[in-house]
Amino acid sequence: MTPEEFREAGYAAVDWVADYLEGVGERPVLSRVAPGQVRESLPPSPPSSGEEWSAILADVEELILPGITHWQSPGFFGFFPANSSGPAVLGDLISSGLGVQGMIWATSPACTELESHVLDWLVDMCGLPDRFRSSSSGGGVIQDSASSATLVALLAARERATHGQGNRHGAGGDLTAYTSQHGHSSIDKAVRIAGYGSERLRHVSTLSDAALDPDALEDAIVADRAEGLTPAVVVATVGTTSSGAVDPVSDIADVCQAHGVWLHVDAAYAGTAAVLPEMRWVVAGLEWADSYVFNPHKWMLTNFDCSAFYVADRRQLIETLTVLPEYLKNEATASGAVIDYRDWQIPLGRRFRALKLWFVIRSYGTEGIRRHVRSGVELAQELAGWVEAHPDFEVVAPHPFGLVCLRHRGGDAINQRIVREVNESGMAYVTHTVLDGAYTIRVAIGAPGTTRDHVGGLWEQIQRAV
Amino acid sequence: MTPEEFREAGYAAVDWVADYLEGVGERPVLSRVAPGQVRESLPPSPPSSGEEWSAILADVEELILPGITHWQSPGFFGFFPANSSGPAVLGDLISSGLGVQGMIWATSPACTELESHVLDWLVDMCGLPDRFRSSSSGGGVIQDSASSATLVALLAARERATHGQGNRHGAGGDLTAYTSQHGHSSIDKAVRIAGYGSERLRHVSTLSDAALDPDALEDAIVADRAEGLTPAVVVATVGTTSSGAVDPVSDIADVCQAHGVWLHVDAAYAGTAAVLPEMRWVVAGLEWADSYVFNPHKWMLTNFDCSAFYVADRRQLIETLTVLPEYLKNEATASGAVIDYRDWQIPLGRRFRALKLWFVIRSYGTEGIRRHVRSGVELAQELAGWVEAHPDFEVVAPHPFGLVCLRHRGGDAINQRIVREVNESGMAYVTHTVLDGAYTIRVAIGAPGTTRDHVGGLWEQIQRAV
Repeated sequence: MTPEEFREAGYAAVDWVADYLEGVGERPVLSRVAPGQVRESLPPSPPSSGEEWSAILADVEELILPGITHWQSPGFFGFFPANSSGPAVLGDLISSGLGVQGMIWATSPACTELESHVLDWLVDMCGLPDRFRSSSSGGGVIQDSASSATLVALLAARERATHGQGNRHGAGGDLTAYTSQHGHSSIDKAVRIAGYGSERLRHVSTLSDAALDPDALEDAIVADRAEGLTPAVVVATVGTTSSGAVDPVSDIADVCQAHGVWLHVDAAYAGTAAVLPEMRWVVAGLEWADSYVFNPHKWMLTNFDCSAFYVADRRQLIETLTVLPEYLKNEATASGAVIDYRDWQIPLGRRFRALKLWFVIRSYGTEGIRRHVRSGVELAQELAGWVEAHPDFEVVAPHPFGLVCLRHRGGDAINQRIVREVNESGMAYVTHTVLDGAYTIRVAIGAPGTTRDHVGGLWEQIQRAV
Repeated sequence: MTPEEFREAGYAAVDWVADYLEGVGERPVLSRVAPGQVRESLPPSPPSSGEEWSAILADVEELILPGITHWQSPGFFGFFPANSSGPAVLGDLISSGLGVQGMIWATSPACTELESHVLDWLVDMCGLPDRFRSSSSGGGVIQDSASSATLVALLAARERATHGQGNRHGAGGDLTAYTSQHGHSSIDKAVRIAGYGSERLRHVSTLSDAALDPDALEDAIVADRAEGLTPAVVVATVGTTSSGAVDPVSDIADVCQAHGVWLHVDAAYAGTAAVLPEMRWVVAGLEWADSYVFNPHKWMLTNFDCSAFYVADRRQLIETLTVLPEYLKNEATASGAVIDYRDWQIPLGRRFRALKLWFVIRSYGTEGIRRHVRSGVELAQELAGWVEAHPDFEVVAPHPFGLVCLRHRGGDAINQRIVREVNESGMAYVTHTVLDGAYTIRVAIGAPGTTRDHVGGLWEQIQRAV
């Protein structure tokens, strides 16, 4: 494809995306294809000669779109939002066009430096502790997901607890990790990957609002230490996936400080709320955290993948993850004057993801991002009000963010039917969780196009489904 | 940004990329900025109000481009190629526009099914064993990088060797891993992450052509077993990063079979060469491999990230990596009729990366991809011929692919000066390695725009630098 052909094909692709985004609200939110249906429509073998761009683009419309669940629909209330936006898409486009590798500073200095810079901007925007700044002892890095960030945190914690012996001899089976019963599944996955072993992960009990109980945490740490084990890491959650519960980070930090345990805070979804001055409590206690993650790719208008991961002491992270073969040695690395982000993550290679975050922050400004987040919070409060005012429904968890957990008082079967009917209607998509043993409807508000009408329509539909 | 604003801004971004690609050969390949220079040009604080798109795009040109090392330049011969192409960039664009999450089948069936489908196409295109097909016991998945793929392979191998106890209790320090002295640094990193410990990684000695010695491998396995250790995984390399060396996979497979050890084959760079019928020997022996990785994002015109990872038995992989919280449960998953790729990788979330690979294969066809790869191989042979014909230079490793390792016979200092002068000239960029203790110039040919003139120009420049 020559640059001129790319220009023509690119206009058509841009038009296609613009049309798609313009009409996404009209499509059934949840894909209706059966397993295998998309594959059946595809030729069994690759073509030997090249095909026309127009034929390929037509197939996106005809063969792929029926198999898409529309995360950018204003009727998408499932899981958590995965915000896309025009500036982010264009940041990705230019990043793809440049096609550079940012594994080390020298392979494209701007890729590294812009990343450090915008992650420092996020420190300002969200009121994060100064020690997370790259000008201090710590720094930020873009990971693909909070799962990977949490894994990296657990690895650094492992090395701190074993004085670097974990890397040499494995975790050894005597390191323990702690999170609440509602910690994310990625924590369960990370303790397995990093060699702690799932038997060494303590799911600490929670208080009535599904927040981790700091006293129970301390008891667990003390008990483990008494058995000769080494408590290595606590993962506190601000905004759990199930219900948006907020662990008491400051109290947990006290326990971690007292016992010399690494504190990692997972605010994958809710961390973005800290852009609102009235929600700054979201990051309270972080000044004692060793590491922190939140996902601009959820609620901050920045396309996946863009997970912002911070450490208070970058040296510990780098020592954990560095391996320097001859073919990557270079003057800038040897000088110590630059960051080589390959030492801050699992993979070696990396895309230029800072570009889209830079575009988003500049296009919307902090005020524009605040408007978006505030809108999600306000709509959630409004929905919660409607639910609470209805005699047959209840709101079953605190809802400070954009997530509302609700259920009909009539038991699991009726709530399951509501979810099925809403999703089959095509107008909206909601997912579920189980809270206190009961099937619960999750409504996560925060897609860029969602308005009061969409939330009102969903509420109508929930009531109609009864 | 409204869809209409996106359309206008998108055209401008497409034009920018088209212009960039048209002129990339005129820019100094290696960025000339000093550490900190890009950051100094950026405002210290994020803007509170949104800025115009035109201002942002102008800053890409003015502030970012000077800090870019141009991987898509026809004069880029460093590391390995990181091919970009028009169809791949547009695949990424449409993927960003859709903004879907492919973590489970249900969250966008097309995202999962197209991925299985095009990875089966690659089985055809590269002559991979049938058991890597999704219709067989195995299957393919797109990972972000070979590093992550190798880590995932080491985890599955760990679980097979420990009968699932590694996930529960950690690797325990008695599992051993094997690779050659020239295995990629990601293997060193993966044994640390996965809890084997670096002390349990054996760097097996090599034969004269830098290929792993199967007899030495077997000796090492037998010795470890005699000490009560559990040999768990061998990583064989087809096309090492240093010199493009090829381990004897069939012979290594015999050893692995005899001792019940997982065989992972890393052909990150060279695997793409198997699209050429005359290079099918590249995948010989794979029918006995448990897992395999190669990177279409290196030499197959598909933008990073797109690493194709295959397993012979997907059940072992899924059992290693699955965690199923309530909020991800759904009918399709429960039915067992679908693939949920979150169980094939470290992160939970995933982009729709299959789209760009589909676009590339359809736009170029297998014949177009073959032409590109064959061109790289032929240019490398031509360069090697020129070097060998010169009395003061030598080719120091076999060069079946696009990589030529060469040096001036005058010692390290002169070769270091050649690399520095070539890179400072701005016309080309080469990197180095150390082979048999001597500083060696690596010339990796395979950027999409590289022609005989560019390779000839580089060779002129290398001679001039003496």
